[in-house]
Amino acid sequence: MRKNRRSFLKKLVAGTTAAGFLPFAKNASAAEVKLKGALVHHVFFWLKEPNNEGHLKQLVKALNDLLKVETIKMSHIGFPAGTESRDVVDHSYSVSYMVMFDNQAGQDAYQVHPLHVKFVKENSYLWERVVVYDSVDQ
Amino acid sequence: MRKNRRSFLKKLVAGTTAAGFLPFAKNASAAEVKLKGALVHHVFFWLKEPNNEGHLKQLVKALNDLLKVETIKMSHIGFPAGTESRDVVDHSYSVSYMVMFDNQAGQDAYQVHPLHVKFVKENSYLWERVVVYDSVDQ
Repeated sequence: MRKNRRSFLKKLVAGTTAAGFLPFAKNASAAEVKLKGALVHHVFFWLKEPNNEGHLKQLVKALNDLLKVETIKMSHIGFPAGTESRDVVDHSYSVSYMVMFDNQAGQDAYQVHPLHVKFVKENSYLWERVVVYDSVDQ
Repeated sequence: MRKNRRSFLKKLVAGTTAAGFLPFAKNASAAEVKLKGALVHHVFFWLKEPNNEGHLKQLVKALNDLLKVETIKMSHIGFPAGTESRDVVDHSYSVSYMVMFDNQAGQDAYQVHPLHVKFVKENSYLWERVVVYDSVDQ
């Protein structure tokens, strides 16, 4: 069971057919791909100078470079969407950085990886606040 | 260009080979799947009674039911990981609910979908706080 859960991301990224890992019929109206056995590491950055385009570009480039860490299996780098303003929606951050690992070991290795250490050292002066959410399914 | 970006998730979930959408060689050490053209909608729930297992189960079941909304293309429902306690890491929430849409229209349709309206109506008494982050790549 554990092996099946953990192998989802690995098999997906190896280029095999994704359909084999869908937990429901292809024509079902349920969410098409339900990720299992993943550790989702989602980081939100608030820049010290949110209107400084040079700072924004530097951070985005550095985050893209950081994706070279081998234990990252899936990623999305984004910005606040133009979705409806509601009390519960936080549109105030500058950059969203979401990466997925197969498991906690992947995240632990990432934290101490030379590329991550370098990223923090070279770019932390850019932001005034960072919030990290690590989530695992069970 | 826009068409290519938006079709990533659609093609992936259709069960076609994922490798065709990887923006780099299969043996590269870069992140294996870099999602493009996705709107990531990440919601964190803080329960009024975080130790009430009945409440937690009810919320998780309701969130799973909510995945039937057709515009959801990828999802992950999780809980705080046992990752290192650092100042920047928020482990205080009860449930993490991440869904991805192809675009903002998918998210807009989701907000007013009867299943979503029903979900909020029937379960909002469970939580004391919700934070939503909507992110798009550009």
